[in-house]
Amino acid sequence: MDAFIISIGEELLIGQTINTNAAWMAAQLNTAGIEVKEIRVITDRHEEILDTLKAAADRADLVLITGGLGPTRDDVTRDVLCTFFDAELVMNRQVLDDITVFFKQRGRTITDINRNQAMVPDKARIIRNPYGTAPGFWFTQAGKSFIAMPGVPYEMKEMVSKHVLPALLEKEREKYIVHKSVLTHGIGESYLVDLIGDWENNLPEEIQLAYLPSVGIVKLRLSAKGKNEERLREIIDREVEALKRIIPEYIWGFDSDTLEGVVGSLLRERGKTVCTAESCTGGYIAHRITSIPGSSAYFSGSIVAYGNQIKTGLLHIPQDLLESFGAVSKETAENMAESVLKLMNSDYAVGVTGIAGPDGGSEEKPVGTTWIAVSSQNKTFSHKYQFGDNRERNIIRASNAALAMLRELINES
Amino acid sequence: MDAFIISIGEELLIGQTINTNAAWMAAQLNTAGIEVKEIRVITDRHEEILDTLKAAADRADLVLITGGLGPTRDDVTRDVLCTFFDAELVMNRQVLDDITVFFKQRGRTITDINRNQAMVPDKARIIRNPYGTAPGFWFTQAGKSFIAMPGVPYEMKEMVSKHVLPALLEKEREKYIVHKSVLTHGIGESYLVDLIGDWENNLPEEIQLAYLPSVGIVKLRLSAKGKNEERLREIIDREVEALKRIIPEYIWGFDSDTLEGVVGSLLRERGKTVCTAESCTGGYIAHRITSIPGSSAYFSGSIVAYGNQIKTGLLHIPQDLLESFGAVSKETAENMAESVLKLMNSDYAVGVTGIAGPDGGSEEKPVGTTWIAVSSQNKTFSHKYQFGDNRERNIIRASNAALAMLRELINES
Repeated sequence: MDAFIISIGEELLIGQTINTNAAWMAAQLNTAGIEVKEIRVITDRHEEILDTLKAAADRADLVLITGGLGPTRDDVTRDVLCTFFDAELVMNRQVLDDITVFFKQRGRTITDINRNQAMVPDKARIIRNPYGTAPGFWFTQAGKSFIAMPGVPYEMKEMVSKHVLPALLEKEREKYIVHKSVLTHGIGESYLVDLIGDWENNLPEEIQLAYLPSVGIVKLRLSAKGKNEERLREIIDREVEALKRIIPEYIWGFDSDTLEGVVGSLLRERGKTVCTAESCTGGYIAHRITSIPGSSAYFSGSIVAYGNQIKTGLLHIPQDLLESFGAVSKETAENMAESVLKLMNSDYAVGVTGIAGPDGGSEEKPVGTTWIAVSSQNKTFSHKYQFGDNRERNIIRASNAALAMLRELINES
Repeated sequence: MDAFIISIGEELLIGQTINTNAAWMAAQLNTAGIEVKEIRVITDRHEEILDTLKAAADRADLVLITGGLGPTRDDVTRDVLCTFFDAELVMNRQVLDDITVFFKQRGRTITDINRNQAMVPDKARIIRNPYGTAPGFWFTQAGKSFIAMPGVPYEMKEMVSKHVLPALLEKEREKYIVHKSVLTHGIGESYLVDLIGDWENNLPEEIQLAYLPSVGIVKLRLSAKGKNEERLREIIDREVEALKRIIPEYIWGFDSDTLEGVVGSLLRERGKTVCTAESCTGGYIAHRITSIPGSSAYFSGSIVAYGNQIKTGLLHIPQDLLESFGAVSKETAENMAESVLKLMNSDYAVGVTGIAGPDGGSEEKPVGTTWIAVSSQNKTFSHKYQFGDNRERNIIRASNAALAMLRELINES
């Protein structure tokens, strides 16, 4: 079954509201094995909605429409649906009761404008709305479903989860899409292509591969489509296993994993603790680690040593070491990690020092130069990274690299 | 001028990625007085892109296309554009140089796949990409502009801000939308409505007001549309001045100001320094302060004291104070601020302690309870906040409140 999503609303076209509704519906449909062919965002003008309904009917078997069902004058979706399906508005007792109860429960008086929302197209099945006053409409024509819902996210989500999806799944029992994402760090997209090109070329034809790069991380998404869900999972798992044998050193997680989550789980499992000494990342690694609920079980704390006096005073980095090697050096990074490890009495520590930019670079150490060290009770190792010239991305990339190195160290020990 | 946005990418149609690019572009175009008629999200299949380009050309004078320009096999936008405009791919020296430099700076070797990205349609103007390897393409046909850009948000944003918008604004000089946003903290949307309702009702008819709430902050956006830019600015400025007289204590900035930027400017102007002692915010305040370029001039550092041993050991909070009042208390917050102020020898300090959740709450101190203190050489003050039960939002709200209090303290002294 192919789907088409129509999002109606001026607020989406002036960029005031991000279209999270469409993404949410697409994810739900996708999980149910229904492929979304297209998403269109349009204004609430009669002709435009009508044209889009026609286009959608040509392209898909299932059309989800949100927005324009409210009680005010700029809400025209119901009228357009009547035109499109040649339907008449009739008073629906059930809907009127729902609206009356809705207002009563909130101690408010029902107005004519609200009462008018109980006038519904005679050719539609009604989807009741427990959280608002606008009901949803489900039309069926030539075997295709057209489902109009309010644009208020929680009202729409309730209708989709409780009514639309269960009814669609009843019908559609033969097609599945299975996804699995493999998360890599430390290798660019084009290098990955070189390493895994043969594997990619030999993928079974049910599997599609997508490269999804973000700052320092490339996500490889495998999607398989077919009739037998179990078999699809098997072939995806087999290919992921094969991939793990080709690039084991770059893979750190799967699907919705985060580096801070993966590191946190490792520490929690082993009953170990971690702390950080941060210069150029300015506390961002500590923030990422503590964004995970329950991180107080394994996170001791952090010293953000931005000024050199803090590096010598609080972190006890020897003045002469700073002077001989500079604040951005292998020696300083390692000393930061080892020192904070002792100060906080933790099992693992991270030390990061670099030039985030845009200023502060030199010919020898240009903006983006970053030294990262990780340390345990019996081992310290460090790497130099050369990031770019964007401060925000340098901080993110340094935090990714530090968490990936920390993961490596925990796994080794 | 009417615009049409085409977002290409499977990840958008399976709901894995939310289409923030389209919302961002729509907001930019709107500010420039260009109306977005429609947004379409489609897959990267040749025929589909071609059909959508045709539909867009029928409906708009400006077509913005993102996605599908990467180096891998699933990226077909460039080929489709060649078909649509009857163009040929030719090697572009400038682009090849850019790609070569891009790889050199990162100490990586250029591959054939990357080199292929310098093959560009001969009928397009090139938009250089300082942050990636895929250039943008600007086609002009029958007076209409078609602009294809990479889907990576920061690459696209750079191209739109630096090249596309300035060039479009050159053309479009008869219609203006002037925006001014007033940023408030410490008051909810519904209370604001009560305070400024009279002012809002008496706004000149050219002005539209929007309330844009986010976590702990409400942005009031005034927009005025008309032919005389200078006059629009005048009436907006007059109304903003009137608003400043009504709610001076809640306003902390304008337009794209950030709390960390405003605080940073104050510190820089006065040649003062700041440091933080953070518990529940886990380094997030330090991260926000250091996200500003040049913050090393005024940020000393931070101690993230997550465990109580770090609070007593490194921050020197007396054990008996922690035991008598608890880690989340006025006394602990103030002691944290005063202690880190001394340790880092700074002019100002922030101390934050709270229960971010989802666990760790009690009847007396439920999740969301947060004490924030700010301190200078001769003054300390603190407030208790009761935030909600969402960890992520609690951390953001605590950091907003702390920065707003810091701003207040600096302004007072």
